Amino acid sequence: MVSSERLQANLRELAAIGATEGGGITRLAYGDADWQARLFLIGLMEQAGLQVRCDAIGNLIGRREGRNPAAPVVMAGSHIDSVPNGGNFDGAIGVLGAIEAVQTLAEAGIMTYHPIEVVVFASEESSRFGVATLGSKAFCGELPAAALKIKDKDGITLAEAMRSRGLSPETVGDAHYSSDIKAFLELHIEQGKVLENAGKQIGIVTGIAAPTRIRAVITGQADHSGATPMNLRQDALAAGAEIILLVEQLACAEMACGTVGTTGIVKAEPGVMNVIPGKVELGIDIRSICQDSKQRVVDKLCHEIEKVQARRGVAVNLDILSNEVPVKLPDEMVSVLQGLCDKLQYASMTMPSGAGHDAMHLAAMTPTGMIFIPCQGGISHNPAEWAELSDIAAGTEVLLAAIRQLAAAERTH
Amino acid sequence: MVSSERLQANLRELAAIGATEGGGITRLAYGDADWQARLFLIGLMEQAGLQVRCDAIGNLIGRREGRNPAAPVVMAGSHIDSVPNGGNFDGAIGVLGAIEAVQTLAEAGIMTYHPIEVVVFASEESSRFGVATLGSKAFCGELPAAALKIKDKDGITLAEAMRSRGLSPETVGDAHYSSDIKAFLELHIEQGKVLENAGKQIGIVTGIAAPTRIRAVITGQADHSGATPMNLRQDALAAGAEIILLVEQLACAEMACGTVGTTGIVKAEPGVMNVIPGKVELGIDIRSICQDSKQRVVDKLCHEIEKVQARRGVAVNLDILSNEVPVKLPDEMVSVLQGLCDKLQYASMTMPSGAGHDAMHLAAMTPTGMIFIPCQGGISHNPAEWAELSDIAAGTEVLLAAIRQLAAAERTH
Repeated sequence: MVSSERLQANLRELAAIGATEGGGITRLAYGDADWQARLFLIGLMEQAGLQVRCDAIGNLIGRREGRNPAAPVVMAGSHIDSVPNGGNFDGAIGVLGAIEAVQTLAEAGIMTYHPIEVVVFASEESSRFGVATLGSKAFCGELPAAALKIKDKDGITLAEAMRSRGLSPETVGDAHYSSDIKAFLELHIEQGKVLENAGKQIGIVTGIAAPTRIRAVITGQADHSGATPMNLRQDALAAGAEIILLVEQLACAEMACGTVGTTGIVKAEPGVMNVIPGKVELGIDIRSICQDSKQRVVDKLCHEIEKVQARRGVAVNLDILSNEVPVKLPDEMVSVLQGLCDKLQYASMTMPSGAGHDAMHLAAMTPTGMIFIPCQGGISHNPAEWAELSDIAAGTEVLLAAIRQLAAAERTH
Repeated sequence: MVSSERLQANLRELAAIGATEGGGITRLAYGDADWQARLFLIGLMEQAGLQVRCDAIGNLIGRREGRNPAAPVVMAGSHIDSVPNGGNFDGAIGVLGAIEAVQTLAEAGIMTYHPIEVVVFASEESSRFGVATLGSKAFCGELPAAALKIKDKDGITLAEAMRSRGLSPETVGDAHYSSDIKAFLELHIEQGKVLENAGKQIGIVTGIAAPTRIRAVITGQADHSGATPMNLRQDALAAGAEIILLVEQLACAEMACGTVGTTGIVKAEPGVMNVIPGKVELGIDIRSICQDSKQRVVDKLCHEIEKVQARRGVAVNLDILSNEVPVKLPDEMVSVLQGLCDKLQYASMTMPSGAGHDAMHLAAMTPTGMIFIPCQGGISHNPAEWAELSDIAAGTEVLLAAIRQLAAAERTH
């Protein structure tokens, strides 16, 4: 049995690092709070008997040796970086849950055949660099070299951020995990309302929606807002407003496929009352578990933006920041997790994930399973994010059981 | 005759203070560049024989005594603060032209019956504090005490900005000009394309459009952009986009009245790719020389925003920052300027001003006239702002002639 009390105490202690006024946290990747939180986790991992190392991009990996140190590792983890003023459960429960599972094994004196590794992936949120899951991309050998040049809002590159933490961007390729992995497991809050509405305690993820992210830069003409007649304007913000509504409309038209479209970033220059905005930047995020549906939204958006350009006499430059393919998780992992939920008597259901996760990259390397638990009102990326301790403990029990089953399986051979 | 060479040299020297890379200037009110530029102007004013003083809000006033020091003053001037990365002519030619006129009188040994004052109004642009013409409002006794608490982007209040320049906010009421003014004249670039299109060198302003400025704060719900279905969103930015387009549409519908509507400011929180914006702030500016037309836009906007709120489940808070009434300039001043243009053989036309100016406040105190000269392509509030030296000199000649006529008129009594 995992310890609810310890999970709760650790969650509280972690939530204090980077805490914001409204009860949320800001732990931007490679920022001070992110790094301070890692120190806390290193302590917990060492207490749980894990040997901790840090890979070239800053993924933190704690290893518990198996009876056969050469056997493929069973791995579990998530991330602890956050969006600005984000919640206390996103990522965190996947990391603390995995540590708790190993701590429980240690206390019970259980040795597994396969080694177990707990991983804290670096820079999962795209909040700082505009690109998500940098750590797990590097771990899976999918990080393009150009990513090192991506800049944050303050013009600091990923390479510079890494260097500020003592990491060598030159060796980032070494983060590619070269040993065999038997399976990867990630426990996470749902970040939606499906489990809550269905009254289920555990969601077993069948597939992960992947985002296409687009930066749209609209160039018009900055003119005096009082002396420029309406018919002589090239208003970059009015063009931007049309694009924001297009993203929404086109995603709504694909609602049957669960497709969503969001403009999360808007910046207008010069950004004052008495000047028509001459330049506007938008950050657009389109997601679906159906690649065709997502592509329809992207294609139609590009097509409609051409019309906006022509009609308004503005230039729109589209930069595809990422275009990931939705990931199916293997049926065998879904079956393992379903069997354990039934055995442990947790009400479970299978479901897709609307949000992206580190697990989607791991799925290309190894059989990967994801365990969801409900979060109140589906609210996430928000200080009001909340998961019940009983659900966190249930998710951790399933994670522990899955680790035991997968890591011990060879014993019977 | 005014000196084109001197005007050009002074314009160049002024343009170097707060110069930006693209050839424009940034001289935000009470900022370092604004204050440095004033030092340069004080020097020019003293060379022209003006006695310089600074009033309680920071308006710079240079006085040339008349034969009757007790006679009402003839006043001319404008401002030298700018929008961020603004142009080199907006405001500047009205100040340098007035100084040049006085310098020309001094060199010609002409004494007028009425004293002449050149004024450099503080904080004309709304770029720093969101409210325009702070200096001329205070000069005319129209500045509400609450204005001292208005904050800039960095949270610095007007009172603090004043204090940083050695001014005492407590005495701001003393800026109210108590002596009689015989007339006020302002030379300015048109900031539109009317003169250029009509092939005229001088515009004689018949009325000044006044802005209604609104801050709209939209509160929705910040949720995960991947895991929140389209039908469960309260997207503050999508609501904001509708409002931006409403401002444009409603102003277009009043185009026959010359009404314009602009959203110059948009800020979305938290402003990252993977979170639906939960809060958006818009800065809206609606102007017309017809009060009824402007009010129709404001009323319809408020009405339509109520529908947006209801439909989207967001809250929109509207804050009317300013609501000024369009100003008619007196026929007698228009006649004086028309007569002088004819006499000096400059092609002129009467026209309204779409932009607000310090002159609109002066008009309530004293007969006020405005002289426009063309600016290339109508471009203003932009580094590409350009006025031909020949037009600047022509405008300054008209200004000089008007000052002479108005300041000398009593001599014949």
